[in-house]
This record gives sequence, structure tokens and C-alpha cells, in this order.
Amino acid sequence: MSTLWLNKVKWDEHGLVPVIAQEAGSNDVLMFAWMNRDALAKTVELGEAVYWSRSRKKLWHKGEESGHTQKVIEIRLDCDEDVVLLKIQQVGDIACHTGRHSCFFQKFEGTRVGGEWLAVEPVLKDPETIYKLD
Amino acid sequence: MSTLWLNKVKWDEHGLVPVIAQEAGSNDVLMFAWMNRDALAKTVELGEAVYWSRSRKKLWHKGEESGHTQKVIEIRLDCDEDVVLLKIQQVGDIACHTGRHSCFFQKFEGTRVGGEWLAVEPVLKDPETIYKLD
Repeated sequence: MSTLWLNKVKWDEHGLVPVIAQEAGSNDVLMFAWMNRDALAKTVELGEAVYWSRSRKKLWHKGEESGHTQKVIEIRLDCDEDVVLLKIQQVGDIACHTGRHSCFFQKFEGTRVGGEWLAVEPVLKDPETIYKLD
Repeated sequence: MSTLWLNKVKWDEHGLVPVIAQEAGSNDVLMFAWMNRDALAKTVELGEAVYWSRSRKKLWHKGEESGHTQKVIEIRLDCDEDVVLLKIQQVGDIACHTGRHSCFFQKFEGTRVGGEWLAVEPVLKDPETIYKLD
């Protein structure tokens, strides 16, 4: 049994690696998160994205509350071996907690001295109906 | 003159933000890097990607040595306002210092207990001819 492949990843000083989740097919970048060693191992084991929540300081099986899990199609590592790219199928088509397809919905408009970020992507589902808050 | 848009970005404890560079058209994820406030301002000003090199601790106008600059088509910010997505046109079609199109050329194959990373994308140009080292 060899988990040497996990040693090839250059974990940062917090034991984490940045992860980009990209939708297979459309190639849309849906979200960005972090993994620790356990999260990456679990992701491979389950075939679904498991991240490390830096705010909650625990493993976060994406979609555990919303049902919007991410089925892993492919896992890539970059040239410096310190960034992971996940190609995924996004269950429910919604990756963002705001109810949008992608987290990258704010677009820069303007110039250096007069710019702004505009929300340019639609909310597909009311977040309150995604997370069943009792 | 307002650079308030720069204040909307949540810079980390080092004053940096992670940046994903995605090729316009193909939607391929080409690389991942970091920007500080100056780098993002310069990127908007020049219309070309300028990153912060954490190893060299200075601004890094991508392509300054190789000629493989990145023309910025669009800039996006995520829901948490702490990750930037650049849509770019990659001059020379090569983003990676290894001479490949994308930095994400290593693909995971196997299982949790017996996996490996395989280089699955071709080198398009010998790195020694990209960087004219005298």
C-alpha cells in the first residue's frame, strides 16, 4: 500500500494546498478551496470533492448540507506540485453558496482609477431553500 | 479617482490574493499565481497579467523574459472576494515554464493506496529556448 503520491504534493506551512474546481465539459471554473492531506485522500477514495474548511477547521464534504456534491472526473497537479485542479461534475449545477453556478460571478468593469465589481451571473436557486435551516 | 474596487478584495495576511489564469475560448486553466494590490492595479492598467512572485518577492510581469505574456480579457472575483479569476489570451500558447500549454499537466492515476501523478501533456517548446539564458 503506497500513499507516496500524497508526498509529492507540496503542502504549505499550514499543511494545505489550493484547489481549483473546474466543471468537466464546460470547463467553467466553479470554485476555489483548500485541501489538507486527509481531504485529498478522501476525495480520491470517495470520488467526490472533500475540502478542508479553514473557517470551521474540519473536513468539508462539499454538498453535505446542500446536496450539491461534486463528482470527481480527474485530478491534476501543477508543475510546482503545490496546486491541485479538480475536474468535476457539479450535482444540481450550483457550486456557489449564493445559489449561482460558479463562485466567480463578480466581473470587473472600469479602469484602475475608477473600477467596480458587478454581479453578472444569475442566482439559480434561493440559498435559503438550498440550506434547510430549521 | 477611486481605487475603492481594490479595497473590496480581501487580501490575506501577506497582502496577497490567489489568482487563477484561465484561457478565454478554450476555458483551459493555465496557471495559478498570486497578486498583491500593486499587481492587480498594474494588471488592470496594462491589460496584461502582472503577478507577485513570492519566491523573488517582487512584481512579475508574466512573459517579461519568455515573451509569453497574458492579455487580460476579463477579471472576476469570487463570492468571498478572496480569489481572482483572470480570463486571458496566452501569447505563444505556452503558460508553463516547462514549455507546456498549461501548468496542470500531471494527472492522478490509481487509488488512494496506490496512486501516481503522470505527465500527460506535451512539451511544446524546449524551456531552454524559451528563456534566453546567456
